[in-house]
Amino acid sequence: MTLPAATRKDGRAADQLRRIEFERGFTRYAEGSVLVSFGDTRVLCNATVEEGVPPFMKGEGRGWVTAEYAMLPRATHSRSPRESTRGKVGGRTHEIQRLIGRALRAVIDLEALGERTIKLDCDVIQADGGTRTASITGAYVALADAVRGLLAKGLIAASPIKEGVAAVSVGIVDGQPALDLNYDEDFRASVDMNFVVTASGRFVEVQGTAEEEPFSGEELDALRDLALSGCRELSALQRLALED
Amino acid sequence: MTLPAATRKDGRAADQLRRIEFERGFTRYAEGSVLVSFGDTRVLCNATVEEGVPPFMKGEGRGWVTAEYAMLPRATHSRSPRESTRGKVGGRTHEIQRLIGRALRAVIDLEALGERTIKLDCDVIQADGGTRTASITGAYVALADAVRGLLAKGLIAASPIKEGVAAVSVGIVDGQPALDLNYDEDFRASVDMNFVVTASGRFVEVQGTAEEEPFSGEELDALRDLALSGCRELSALQRLALED
Amino acid sequence: MTLPAATRKDGRAADQLRRIEFERGFTRYAEGSVLVSFGDTRVLCNATVEEGVPPFMKGEGRGWVTAEYAMLPRATHSRSPRESTRGKVGGRTHEIQRLIGRALRAVIDLEALGERTIKLDCDVIQADGGTRTASITGAYVALADAVRGLLAKGLIAASPIKEGVAAVSVGIVDGQPALDLNYDEDFRASVDMNFVVTASGRFVEVQGTAEEEPFSGEELDALRDLALSGCRELSALQRLALED
Amino acid sequence: MTLPAATRKDGRAADQLRRIEFERGFTRYAEGSVLVSFGDTRVLCNATVEEGVPPFMKGEGRGWVTAEYAMLPRATHSRSPRESTRGKVGGRTHEIQRLIGRALRAVIDLEALGERTIKLDCDVIQADGGTRTASITGAYVALADAVRGLLAKGLIAASPIKEGVAAVSVGIVDGQPALDLNYDEDFRASVDMNFVVTASGRFVEVQGTAEEEPFSGEELDALRDLALSGCRELSALQRLALED
Amino acid sequence: MTLPAATRKDGRAADQLRRIEFERGFTRYAEGSVLVSFGDTRVLCNATVEEGVPPFMKGEGRGWVTAEYAMLPRATHSRSPRESTRGKVGGRTHEIQRLIGRALRAVIDLEALGERTIKLDCDVIQADGGTRTASITGAYVALADAVRGLLAKGLIAASPIKEGVAAVSVGIVDGQPALDLNYDEDFRASVDMNFVVTASGRFVEVQGTAEEEPFSGEELDALRDLALSGCRELSALQRLALED
Amino acid sequence: MTLPAATRKDGRAADQLRRIEFERGFTRYAEGSVLVSFGDTRVLCNATVEEGVPPFMKGEGRGWVTAEYAMLPRATHSRSPRESTRGKVGGRTHEIQRLIGRALRAVIDLEALGERTIKLDCDVIQADGGTRTASITGAYVALADAVRGLLAKGLIAASPIKEGVAAVSVGIVDGQPALDLNYDEDFRASVDMNFVVTASGRFVEVQGTAEEEPFSGEELDALRDLALSGCRELSALQRLALED
Repeated sequence: MTLPAATRKDGRAADQLRRIEFERGFTRYAEGSVLVSFGDTRVLCNATVEEGVPPFMKGEGRGWVTAEYAMLPRATHSRSPRESTRGKVGGRTHEIQRLIGRALRAVIDLEALGERTIKLDCDVIQADGGTRTASITGAYVALADAVRGLLAKGLIAASPIKEGVAAVSVGIVDGQPALDLNYDEDFRASVDMNFVVTASGRFVEVQGTAEEEPFSGEELDALRDLALSGCRELSALQRLALED
Repeated sequence: MTLPAATRKDGRAADQLRRIEFERGFTRYAEGSVLVSFGDTRVLCNATVEEGVPPFMKGEGRGWVTAEYAMLPRATHSRSPRESTRGKVGGRTHEIQRLIGRALRAVIDLEALGERTIKLDCDVIQADGGTRTASITGAYVALADAVRGLLAKGLIAASPIKEGVAAVSVGIVDGQPALDLNYDEDFRASVDMNFVVTASGRFVEVQGTAEEEPFSGEELDALRDLALSGCRELSALQRLALED
Repeated sequence: MTLPAATRKDGRAADQLRRIEFERGFTRYAEGSVLVSFGDTRVLCNATVEEGVPPFMKGEGRGWVTAEYAMLPRATHSRSPRESTRGKVGGRTHEIQRLIGRALRAVIDLEALGERTIKLDCDVIQADGGTRTASITGAYVALADAVRGLLAKGLIAASPIKEGVAAVSVGIVDGQPALDLNYDEDFRASVDMNFVVTASGRFVEVQGTAEEEPFSGEELDALRDLALSGCRELSALQRLALED
Repeated sequence: MTLPAATRKDGRAADQLRRIEFERGFTRYAEGSVLVSFGDTRVLCNATVEEGVPPFMKGEGRGWVTAEYAMLPRATHSRSPRESTRGKVGGRTHEIQRLIGRALRAVIDLEALGERTIKLDCDVIQADGGTRTASITGAYVALADAVRGLLAKGLIAASPIKEGVAAVSVGIVDGQPALDLNYDEDFRASVDMNFVVTASGRFVEVQGTAEEEPFSGEELDALRDLALSGCRELSALQRLALED
Repeated sequence: MTLPAATRKDGRAADQLRRIEFERGFTRYAEGSVLVSFGDTRVLCNATVEEGVPPFMKGEGRGWVTAEYAMLPRATHSRSPRESTRGKVGGRTHEIQRLIGRALRAVIDLEALGERTIKLDCDVIQADGGTRTASITGAYVALADAVRGLLAKGLIAASPIKEGVAAVSVGIVDGQPALDLNYDEDFRASVDMNFVVTASGRFVEVQGTAEEEPFSGEELDALRDLALSGCRELSALQRLALED
Repeated sequence: MTLPAATRKDGRAADQLRRIEFERGFTRYAEGSVLVSFGDTRVLCNATVEEGVPPFMKGEGRGWVTAEYAMLPRATHSRSPRESTRGKVGGRTHEIQRLIGRALRAVIDLEALGERTIKLDCDVIQADGGTRTASITGAYVALADAVRGLLAKGLIAASPIKEGVAAVSVGIVDGQPALDLNYDEDFRASVDMNFVVTASGRFVEVQGTAEEEPFSGEELDALRDLALSGCRELSALQRLALED
């Protein structure tokens, strides 16, 4: 399947990411604080280091990495009610925060972390598609900053990070595979996939959903290739951001 | 990647399903009622037809298909507390019931269904791995029975079912790809994937998670092939069950 | 008050139980697992043994027996929403599960049980009246199986069961006393009572409600006699089931 | 079974009620407001008349009577947490408020009431046993006052009250049947029953629980007789209170 | 700003309190129990002494004083639903109970109290404006009674009460400052303030809200003076009540 | 009471505000979006305009202005759990969002607004004291932007804003009155007040709490004067920000 020349509404090529930015140190108190932008999607990723682990893990000498995800009420075109006001966390939120946690744990050596917990809070300030992939990609950078703090304080001797991790969405839009969908593309996509990929190009998570029409093996292959190339680029940008 | 000869604890070949059974008409009142077994995993799938659709869809002339999923407290080795007692539905439950609903909607022509809702209640009586894939596979049969009832009563003129749908889990267990994991295999798997596939062999959902080690493109391909062959077999068994 | 010849819609005599069945070992993991049927009413009663007691009883050397009750959403003619989804357990559920717990504790020597808890989960698969009496009657059999397991493992030296316990509903239907009401009779009954009676014919619980008209002492006596004879028969059937 | 001469700690005969008082008009705004005392048990029973009925009854031309029950946190010897703070209404509360509602509906002609709702709020100010029976007995008086208001305003032409209703507890204490148990007796009772009886001496509710030992038919008869005589006296006191 | 001659509907002068009453020992079990009346506003204030403090204060050698506030459903002209039924405590309730707690802690030496907690339950029996100020004023008297009990039992050597505290509402009604507003005045007030003042005339809390029109510094001064004089009178009445 | 020369830790004079900034248009979708900074306290204030009003106001021809307030989990030195996860909105949050709503409604002519609702979401990104006063001050600017949008679209003919409104905290720190407390000062303050003041210098809200010691009338006067001067300056800065 060959990719067509640019036909995307925002002028991007099929295999082109939106403008990616990482603003480290966005807030003062968190051990890692990154405002990540995937185009108009902006997520504040704060890493908190806490001594100790959840009760079910106590005494095993291993650490834990977990995540919470939320949208500010007016991150979207029309306002959505707060989950605190509705008194419960919705299914979509649960799904996303479990995904972020799994993605980050896949690249962390929990034993090397020691009995401490790193919590990643991903709060969506503005949503234009791909909030979960931006969250994972930004949270990795916040996590890396938190780990540097632990190393600087001598609390751990070596970094527990095995390699980097990034995530990107892909989909079939107007019959064509496309990388890093914005809200408008995501809405029109007949297939929507999210890939979480390590810096070494291996898969951590693969999630694909046929929104309208089931998809073929050939389409699956094309989307996978797009995602791999997108994640390679995101990994490079993460490294760059962490060098500043 | 060639599959090894049988080394699975329960004697199955790598590409062999557990014993699959569909007991239709398990309860009296539901419009479709199927007790599905994937080996020791048993799920009661009841389909309820209700006139009308959720408020946000009213007046659009389209129907809706949705699902709820739960485990009986003692479906598992040790008892787990009821979600009703804890006062909220957990993240894993949300994730699974959203998946079941999407899987079934992918093969239903909602306009042909008319402004009515079909609810699939999937209650796990006994859990030995693969409860979500058994739920989807059994719920399809219950849904088909409910649709037959609508046809028999003349409420709809033609079946809104576009084709069948089934689901199966695959994973890398002890370094080898394997089909339809039981609890013990699922627990030991380094990669765990669920595929939802239509009777015509196209993908509705692809979900893969690296539990320990990220996985390669070659492994992804091997798991996909196993899942396609497993779902082909499940589709045939569904057809057989519906012929009785 | 003499009982009339059979005028019940389903052909039963006034003092006749529905077909009673106990299917032991219905699921694999529970320490006791019984699918009990009172006609079309079917309840899965699972007994779970857990070491330890609730905090308020710790260190007193006594055990605890408790119960939870729920209906599957489509146990009834029309679907009822899950209590987990509504976020709270309703008043009727509370009332029934407290009743089941009290009924079973009445025949258990909690000191002989030791500091462990037996939980009875009664999940109604299909409801046609009398779900609470079927639950008590089936739960006793599951409890007896769980106690046998404790004895077999040598965890207790002697059975803490003092005697058997069973329960049955009675009511005034179409002006006549009747035993073991099905849903249709229960709906039409002007008086509705539930009796929990030990194998030795003594009362554990007596609950009667005038649905329409208050009832006289004579009617109360007639209903009591019916219930005593029904429970005598149920006790015999429980013994038989436990001999298999 | 003959009743023994007074051996009760508070000097009462076995068939003697505690001091009963009804203070009508205890608060200003409720359509009926009665502070009822059964000895040291004091319950404020407020009746509220609201036009309209719950949605499931609309358009049927019938009214509704319902009740809510609560204890002030320090009604008891040691403080119990508020149900509002715990975020849910407990099982015992549900059970009691359903009982109060059923008891009052049994003596009301709902059609004669018209499409309006009378809510009885029973708030326990001080608890010394028998709060549910005091609630029913006091709520009837508040209800009667609310009905008088409706008649006075010409909203209904005739009283929908068919007859009075009262309730009392009985039990086997120290091996002897006793009427109207206080907290200390209730705590020590081996059998505990509540009877709701109309002014004409017919039964609305019978609830008996063996706390320790199952009880015999002879004991049941003795308790029933005690309750009938106690309720006869309570009915007379209600009439007197309503004449003031 | 001079106060006008009596123009208030109920005949009071601008600086005149309603009839104030304290009925000590209103219930039997609480360590302090006061039914306070500010005219038709009646609040039952019960003090409970519990050994121990909340977890976050353990081991610091200091005590804690806290409050809960609620209205009976029919304390008001029309019935309001219970917060227990709605499953959560509303914002207004939270605000008031936090205020009561702070007010009382301001006059208590928490170290002298030792590691024990005094809880003040303020339950509004009848509401005619000023329920929060009546609650504080009555709760102080209940607290004083509870402290006397601790002294009498020798659990503390000296009273931890530094001085008395009382509270009153003031407002601009019909353009004129007025003291101790009833519901009707409160409803019409353009400015509504609550002052919590110690027996020595110092401020613990000042809360003012412009309901309609923002208010000037001159108005603020006039309201403050009214409140100071009202609280002086309330302090004297508290002392009197505690002398009985 | 004369103010001392600069002794504040951060070098500010007693009557000096922190650095105040308004970043308008911080997000794209909200009708008004302002990131306000009071030193290190940063709050994102988003205004949403929705047609219609809450049910209890329908058909009265008046609009509504309301607010919600929340802190991101890591806005503070140590992470605080999300209110959505805890399943309820805490007392402090309720108190603050009610305050913000009242403050803004005081300067809005609700009739001129028409039957529409403006919701102000105040989400604290970083907290260093004074989050509620920063929220009110920033929310006013977001509200003004939203009103401009309504005017620009011709949905309203004239601005419903009667005048500006701002808020500031004051307190007695180390025995000295001080303006606009940061977290460290707030923590040490013996008295803590918040004033909400209109652009014309009149009071909308006055809230003062003695944290340790009750305070005198003289201190109250000194704090009021500081607050008036601080709010005058804030009003000028709001006007400037809105001119850009």
